[in-house]
Amino acid sequence: MTKVVLFHETGPADVLRIEDLPQQEPRENEVRVRVEAIGLNRAEIMFRTGAYLEAPQFPARLGLEAAGVVDAVGPGVTGITVGDRVSTVPSFSMNSHGVYGESAIVPAHAVVRHPTNLSALEGASIWTQYLTVWGALIHYGKVRAGENILITAARLAAIDLANLLGARPIAVTRTSAKKKTLLDLGAAEVIASTEEDLPEAVRRYTDGKGADLIFDAVAGPFLETLSQGAAPGAQIIEYGWLSAEPTPFPLFTSFQKGLTVRGYTIYEFVNDRLLRPEAEKFIAAHLAKGTLRPRIDRTLPLSQIVDAHRYLESNQQVGKVVVTINENSNAN
Amino acid sequence: MTKVVLFHETGPADVLRIEDLPQQEPRENEVRVRVEAIGLNRAEIMFRTGAYLEAPQFPARLGLEAAGVVDAVGPGVTGITVGDRVSTVPSFSMNSHGVYGESAIVPAHAVVRHPTNLSALEGASIWTQYLTVWGALIHYGKVRAGENILITAARLAAIDLANLLGARPIAVTRTSAKKKTLLDLGAAEVIASTEEDLPEAVRRYTDGKGADLIFDAVAGPFLETLSQGAAPGAQIIEYGWLSAEPTPFPLFTSFQKGLTVRGYTIYEFVNDRLLRPEAEKFIAAHLAKGTLRPRIDRTLPLSQIVDAHRYLESNQQVGKVVVTINENSNAN
Repeated sequence: MTKVVLFHETGPADVLRIEDLPQQEPRENEVRVRVEAIGLNRAEIMFRTGAYLEAPQFPARLGLEAAGVVDAVGPGVTGITVGDRVSTVPSFSMNSHGVYGESAIVPAHAVVRHPTNLSALEGASIWTQYLTVWGALIHYGKVRAGENILITAARLAAIDLANLLGARPIAVTRTSAKKKTLLDLGAAEVIASTEEDLPEAVRRYTDGKGADLIFDAVAGPFLETLSQGAAPGAQIIEYGWLSAEPTPFPLFTSFQKGLTVRGYTIYEFVNDRLLRPEAEKFIAAHLAKGTLRPRIDRTLPLSQIVDAHRYLESNQQVGKVVVTINENSNAN
Repeated sequence: MTKVVLFHETGPADVLRIEDLPQQEPRENEVRVRVEAIGLNRAEIMFRTGAYLEAPQFPARLGLEAAGVVDAVGPGVTGITVGDRVSTVPSFSMNSHGVYGESAIVPAHAVVRHPTNLSALEGASIWTQYLTVWGALIHYGKVRAGENILITAARLAAIDLANLLGARPIAVTRTSAKKKTLLDLGAAEVIASTEEDLPEAVRRYTDGKGADLIFDAVAGPFLETLSQGAAPGAQIIEYGWLSAEPTPFPLFTSFQKGLTVRGYTIYEFVNDRLLRPEAEKFIAAHLAKGTLRPRIDRTLPLSQIVDAHRYLESNQQVGKVVVTINENSNAN
C-alpha cells in the first residue's frame, strides 16, 4: 500500500484526503517514482477548487512537480532506469497523473535528471518556477539588458532571471510586508500595490519610461492598472488569475501605447521537442553554476498537506512551498 | 474666404457645419493644400462623438486624409513646392490640424506625393487603409503565405494585402448582405457573424486549425468569440471599437491557446523615421503596379458632409467613402 492524496469533490483545502491505495505498476511509456519531495503550485489549488483550465475527474489525484527515485519503468521507456534520481516537469494533465503521494506514476517524457548538486527538496522546487519564467522572459518576452520588468505576486524566479539577464526587476506585492525581503532577494524596486499609486511608482522607478515587460499572475481589474504603468510597445504576459474577477481588456490604453497582452502557460512549450530541451539546458546550467538557485520558502510533511495548501493560498510565502515525504528528503 | 467643416459640440452627424473662414497662412513646417478630395475615416466619427483617443477642442476642425495641390508653404519646409500634387498621411492630432474643407493646413511631414497614376480621389483613399494594414499584417503581424487571416468589418485593404502576401483572407461581416461582394473582391471565405457560429465556421474554413491572425475593428464582447476561432499561438490585433461595449479579455482562451491580443493604431509608426518610409515605399510601389489598388465605395460632395458621415456610420460601405470638393477632383 502507498499513501496518496485524493479529493472527491472540489472545495477548500480540507477536501484533500490522504488514502492508502495499492501500489500500481507503470504502463507503456510511464515510470514510477518513489517520491521524496513535492513542489506545490497554484495550479493545484485551482484544480482542487474547480477553477482550473480542466475540471477534476473524481476521485482525483493532483500534483505536477515531484522529485525522488525511479523504482519501476513501464514498457517502451528508454533512457531512464530504476534508481535514477529525477524530478518531474509539469507536462501532463492532472486527470491522467498526479504526484501528491509517496509514489507517483508519470509519463516518461515528464521526467528529468535534476542537476546533481541539488537535493530532492530542491529538485522539486525548480522546474515550474524556472520553466515558467524562461518561457515568459526569454523565449516569448525577449528581455534585454537594461529593460524594466514589472513582476507581480513576488515571483522570485522572475526576479532572479531578470537580474541574470541584466534587466531591472521591479517587484509588485500587495502590502509592504514583503518589501524588505524582496529587496534583499534581488528586486531593484518594490511597489506595494494597495498602498501606492502603481503607475506613478513605475514611472518614478523607470525615469518616466514605464515597464517594458509586465509578468503578471493577478489579472482581473488589476490589468488596467498595470497597463497604465507600461511603456509604449510593452508586452504584458498573463499567466495566472489570482484576482478571480473578470479581466477587462485595457482597450484604449493598448491603442495609445501599442500594448500587447498575452495569455501564457508553460504547456505552450513543455511538450515541444526543441524548446523544452533548450529551456532545461539553460536552467540546469545556471542551477549547477549557482547563477540561478532554488528558492524554498517552507517545507511541510505530507501529513500536513491541507495546511500546506492553506499556506500557499494565504500568499504569505516568498518562494516555493515544498512537501516532504520522509526525513531523508533533504539528503542528496 | 474658404469653406471649412467645423463642429462646436460633440454629437450626431448634424453637429457638422460648413462655415466660411478667412484663408490662413501656413506657419513654420506647415504647408497649405487646396483640397480636391477627402477620405473619411471612422476616427473622425469617434472624434465628432467624443469617443476618440483625444477630446475635440471647440470650435473643432476634423479630418486626417486629403489629396490636392500645395498652394502655400511655410517657413522651414524643404522638398515640397507650391504646385505639388500631394495627399496626407494621418500623422497629426485633429486638434492641431483638420483637412475637412476647401483648404487645409497640415504639418509638412504629413504630406506625400501620391503615385502619379492615381487621381486626387484615389490619393485621398489609400493612406489610412494601406498604412493600417501594412503595420498590422506585415510589420507587427508578420503574415506568411498560407496563413489564415480573419478580417472583421469587411476591411478591403486587409483582404487585398493578405492576398498579395499569399495568405487566405477570411472576411467577417455582420450579415450575408455583403457576402457576394466580398467574395468577388477577393475574400477566400466570408462569415456572417450574426447568422453563423463564427468559431465553427472558422474551423471549417481552416481545416480545423483556426485563424493565425485576427485583424479586428469591433472589440467588445466579440473579442471572446473571435478568440475561440483563433489558432494556438495566434495574434489578435485590435484597431477599432465598433462595438462600443466593454471588452472582456479572453483570459482562459488565451491561456489555453497562448493568444496575444494587441492594441494597435498607425500612430505607432507613422512618425517613425524608418518605418513610415518603408511602408510608403511598399504601398506606392504596389499601387503603381496595380497589385494594390484604391477601393472607393462612394463619393459625395462637400455640401453633403453630414450625409457622408451618416453613410459611414451605417456600415453599408465596402471600401472608402470619399468627399469631393469640385467637379475636377476626378482628374489626375
